Amino acid sequence: MGKVAVIMGSKSDWQAIRPCYDTLVKFGIDAEVFVMSAHRTPDKAAEFAKNAEAEGYKVIIAAAGKAAHLAGVLAAHTVLPVIGIPVKSSTMDGLDSLLSVVQMPSGIPVATVAINGAENAAILAAQMLALSSPGLCKKLADFKKELAEKVEKDNEALKKELLSE
Amino acid sequence: MGKVAVIMGSKSDWQAIRPCYDTLVKFGIDAEVFVMSAHRTPDKAAEFAKNAEAEGYKVIIAAAGKAAHLAGVLAAHTVLPVIGIPVKSSTMDGLDSLLSVVQMPSGIPVATVAINGAENAAILAAQMLALSSPGLCKKLADFKKELAEKVEKDNEALKKELLSE
Amino acid sequence: MGKVAVIMGSKSDWQAIRPCYDTLVKFGIDAEVFVMSAHRTPDKAAEFAKNAEAEGYKVIIAAAGKAAHLAGVLAAHTVLPVIGIPVKSSTMDGLDSLLSVVQMPSGIPVATVAINGAENAAILAAQMLALSSPGLCKKLADFKKELAEKVEKDNEALKKELLSE
Amino acid sequence: MGKVAVIMGSKSDWQAIRPCYDTLVKFGIDAEVFVMSAHRTPDKAAEFAKNAEAEGYKVIIAAAGKAAHLAGVLAAHTVLPVIGIPVKSSTMDGLDSLLSVVQMPSGIPVATVAINGAENAAILAAQMLALSSPGLCKKLADFKKELAEKVEKDNEALKKELLSE
Amino acid sequence: MGKVAVIMGSKSDWQAIRPCYDTLVKFGIDAEVFVMSAHRTPDKAAEFAKNAEAEGYKVIIAAAGKAAHLAGVLAAHTVLPVIGIPVKSSTMDGLDSLLSVVQMPSGIPVATVAINGAENAAILAAQMLALSSPGLCKKLADFKKELAEKVEKDNEALKKELLSE
Amino acid sequence: MGKVAVIMGSKSDWQAIRPCYDTLVKFGIDAEVFVMSAHRTPDKAAEFAKNAEAEGYKVIIAAAGKAAHLAGVLAAHTVLPVIGIPVKSSTMDGLDSLLSVVQMPSGIPVATVAINGAENAAILAAQMLALSSPGLCKKLADFKKELAEKVEKDNEALKKELLSE
Amino acid sequence: MGKVAVIMGSKSDWQAIRPCYDTLVKFGIDAEVFVMSAHRTPDKAAEFAKNAEAEGYKVIIAAAGKAAHLAGVLAAHTVLPVIGIPVKSSTMDGLDSLLSVVQMPSGIPVATVAINGAENAAILAAQMLALSSPGLCKKLADFKKELAEKVEKDNEALKKELLSE
Amino acid sequence: MGKVAVIMGSKSDWQAIRPCYDTLVKFGIDAEVFVMSAHRTPDKAAEFAKNAEAEGYKVIIAAAGKAAHLAGVLAAHTVLPVIGIPVKSSTMDGLDSLLSVVQMPSGIPVATVAINGAENAAILAAQMLALSSPGLCKKLADFKKELAEKVEKDNEALKKELLSE
Repeated sequence: MGKVAVIMGSKSDWQAIRPCYDTLVKFGIDAEVFVMSAHRTPDKAAEFAKNAEAEGYKVIIAAAGKAAHLAGVLAAHTVLPVIGIPVKSSTMDGLDSLLSVVQMPSGIPVATVAINGAENAAILAAQMLALSSPGLCKKLADFKKELAEKVEKDNEALKKELLSE
Repeated sequence: MGKVAVIMGSKSDWQAIRPCYDTLVKFGIDAEVFVMSAHRTPDKAAEFAKNAEAEGYKVIIAAAGKAAHLAGVLAAHTVLPVIGIPVKSSTMDGLDSLLSVVQMPSGIPVATVAINGAENAAILAAQMLALSSPGLCKKLADFKKELAEKVEKDNEALKKELLSE
Repeated sequence: MGKVAVIMGSKSDWQAIRPCYDTLVKFGIDAEVFVMSAHRTPDKAAEFAKNAEAEGYKVIIAAAGKAAHLAGVLAAHTVLPVIGIPVKSSTMDGLDSLLSVVQMPSGIPVATVAINGAENAAILAAQMLALSSPGLCKKLADFKKELAEKVEKDNEALKKELLSE
Repeated sequence: MGKVAVIMGSKSDWQAIRPCYDTLVKFGIDAEVFVMSAHRTPDKAAEFAKNAEAEGYKVIIAAAGKAAHLAGVLAAHTVLPVIGIPVKSSTMDGLDSLLSVVQMPSGIPVATVAINGAENAAILAAQMLALSSPGLCKKLADFKKELAEKVEKDNEALKKELLSE
Repeated sequence: MGKVAVIMGSKSDWQAIRPCYDTLVKFGIDAEVFVMSAHRTPDKAAEFAKNAEAEGYKVIIAAAGKAAHLAGVLAAHTVLPVIGIPVKSSTMDGLDSLLSVVQMPSGIPVATVAINGAENAAILAAQMLALSSPGLCKKLADFKKELAEKVEKDNEALKKELLSE
Repeated sequence: MGKVAVIMGSKSDWQAIRPCYDTLVKFGIDAEVFVMSAHRTPDKAAEFAKNAEAEGYKVIIAAAGKAAHLAGVLAAHTVLPVIGIPVKSSTMDGLDSLLSVVQMPSGIPVATVAINGAENAAILAAQMLALSSPGLCKKLADFKKELAEKVEKDNEALKKELLSE
Repeated sequence: MGKVAVIMGSKSDWQAIRPCYDTLVKFGIDAEVFVMSAHRTPDKAAEFAKNAEAEGYKVIIAAAGKAAHLAGVLAAHTVLPVIGIPVKSSTMDGLDSLLSVVQMPSGIPVATVAINGAENAAILAAQMLALSSPGLCKKLADFKKELAEKVEKDNEALKKELLSE
Repeated sequence: MGKVAVIMGSKSDWQAIRPCYDTLVKFGIDAEVFVMSAHRTPDKAAEFAKNAEAEGYKVIIAAAGKAAHLAGVLAAHTVLPVIGIPVKSSTMDGLDSLLSVVQMPSGIPVATVAINGAENAAILAAQMLALSSPGLCKKLADFKKELAEKVEKDNEALKKELLSE
């Protein structure tokens, strides 16, 4: 299926990004995690993106906060799809990150998920890989069923709670 | 490579979405265009999304404005990757559309591009399809070179303009 | 008078939505509570909305956060009035929910109340039902008086507190 | 069925509010239009709201811009449902109006529609009246079908346009 | 000098409004505090504003949160200057209150201070009263000097702290 | 009654500020207009504010856009009430001006009116002067009546227009 | 004094950026203009920034819109001061550009000026260069005087216009 | 190299500003700290700015919150570069401060860093001083390397943590 790179701009984002890694692992996807910065290690980031395809990566997930340039900078150097996770930082409630990630100019897209949407970034990567992996496709369909069943169970549980009051 | 569906919530969005279709065609991707509404033809939209995989679609691109639910509603019914284009409408400068598209809850991602980012939605779809199409991958790499050459030419042109003043 | 359905997109919204249910009960309105998701159980939500009128529901109240599509999706499938409660989530202070709920396109309205305005959703539902129920109308008028008396009492209490300082 | 009052804070809002009146008329609803201001004719507005129920009004629709207090002020004086239309004015793109209308404190709801959502205000009023009018209910269901057919036609038209290029 | 009325929409705002009252008292201004609501006790609020001038009030200060109509509603009924304090509530960080208070339509101004700017509302009222009270004018000038001396002292203190590290 | 100074940060604001001057003149208030800048003529602005009281000014109205510091800078140098008009500039729809004017720190209030609220600034100044001028007070009461009559006339006119369609 | 590089992300920004270049020229500063993109010519941009100091540049001015990464990307590769001009694009009124430029993470500052603040970027560059150029320092002081004189003239002109009405 | 003045509008900002001072000291820059207010000690602030150049200051850093006029007011009185730090206060998440600092009108720039970007303000000042100090330039290059090494170490640490789980 190919590997997925999960790159965060700062190790302090790891707690917010962990669900992305865990979800990829859950889907049996080969995931590698990196700390790389568009501003502090720009050459390493550029180098990584340039070689990513050759090194067997299929999708790059990039998470950063504030003026979150990481996803855009990686996307500048590869034709692989790049998924951006805007990370909420200490001010502006994530709006700065969101706009910095999603508002990319024509020619260089970043597939943006919700602020702190780490799990969804993993699912989106899985959906891309599933285009050529029937096995993964099946797992995604099963996951969708589990989501629905969880809602149904919550529905039943809430009704019971109300009855027992 | 499989087909890409380009779905807009209202025919009035066509002018904004046209660059998406044209870019897909330029990349030699089989694209089909639909007007479908999450609110006015919800069953048709659900039906389409449920059958999309079986009908040979690989990626769904959905464009809508205001309380832009279309991409999310389609994503609810398929494991195909869904790309969302927030369309700027007459108020709120597209912020309502952007937040309605990108802020999806855990479990159901929408790959969101910039407000009115129709061309980028097409490129992102191409990047996904290129994961299993070396030919398309080559086209994307060429496109990236053209983008760079265009900037270089603009750079030269601007310098000449300044010299000739 | 007919029943009111109170539907939340996630069981985690229950604490925020509880005042809606309690207020309906206080007014003697037959209220039923559901967990249903526009994205995780879309068919169930659509089915519910399609049958709601026949099953004796008169008003549907839908609460959701982030890209809050639930109210709009339900409204797409029924001519019953749908009241939307935008729920504040962990980012964006509820602005994403508010815009996703209120900015509905022409043709499919959602009667939107304030962010986390659970009690007001119930009162609004009661006002709708009261159009054909003089008894409920009387209760609403009494409730309005209580609201005023509460303010008057607070006014007196504050004056006393200040005097006794 | 009872009458609907359509009240605007300023005659200059009439062009934006006209679709509300026209839609009510289309549904065969007895609609009356007023210019009344929460700030310039506050007593008249209060008086109107206090007597509205006795005068046979069933729903009040109030449209205003900027610090849009009209809907809230009317709702303060009646138990009838009040629908608020936030009107976009010359600054702030309607955000000021939207927040002034929708963020009502507990106890006094305003059923808020989208910024400049005049047609939806009328449909929402019709949905409320339809709760005790099977005829109006039928009209709403027909209207919903027309909305869907319009989308289908637009879909066909777009496909033809593309084929004929 | 005349009295100042300090009116809050809800007793829960008292902690935020207390500095307004205390500052008025500090300046020797006759201040009276009320809980009154534009939405829950609208008649009382209107009555108060209509009679305020005759009852010897010179300035009205109104504090409210969310869709904060109180200051505007009072201003509708009097030619006395009305000062509005937007109160930060549980969502939207006070932006809803600010826009609801400050964006008044032409003809009915509200003199708006900062979100939760209770002390400044009192100082502004004092500045208005000082127009015809040399004594109060002197107190305001003294207060301004104290403000400056406080900054100077803080400046000295900070320098000492740094030296002693 | 004393004079009112109307100060704008840039002559380009004059068209937006003109209604302020005209309204003051209409009320028979002695108004003087100045172009002065907090950033380009800071000493002149400071000097003006320091001497304003001695020169017979009673109220200062300051209008500026973008990082609108003018009202705050003037208020720093006087105990006269300062009214701030946030002027909408070419970006940010006036939000930058509004926040720069209204969010003053404790100790130095600016009485802020709506974005481009020039007429209301004049009325607010009149209300302050009217505290010691029964004649002006009467004019304000008459103005309020005219406002109401204008609304009533608009109401009648709209009804006639609808009848004659 | 050293050279200043004025870099824009797209030639379409030239009209907005021209005042920057013209102001630098007016101050006698050696300015060079480039079109370079953080996303379309990332290597060229990185290369330029790495060599800028050696090539005699003293300050880099970077202008871009939307997800405006250019200034940050250049700053990542140099210790020269980088000035960022957020350019207003077709949506979001420049807020996306502003936040993308100014909200830089710790370690890599960008000296941000106002949205479309091209002239101020040039003045800021001049102020930096003037730290070691008394001649330029003098020019800046003269420019400041001209600014003040322009305001004074506008003030006189406005007074005359009013008198002659 | 010349001195840097670090000025804050209120001593309560010191905790947020401390990293600025510490970073300047770390770079061996002569830094002096002041509490000065644009609104409470305007004359002292103006005086300071007017004399700053003569007193040997090269750069002024100004930090303030809410309607943050300090940086702009200082910039009005000097041709030295002024760096503005918008400080997050209790409401509006720093947006008010940011817009008040960055949106300066043409002619008077403020080099704005991120909300609470104290460390970056110091680095930016160092970059300006380094234009004529090869020693400081070397320190900045070393600091840049340390930043990169820190990221590399974090990267290694994270990989180890994951392996050891």
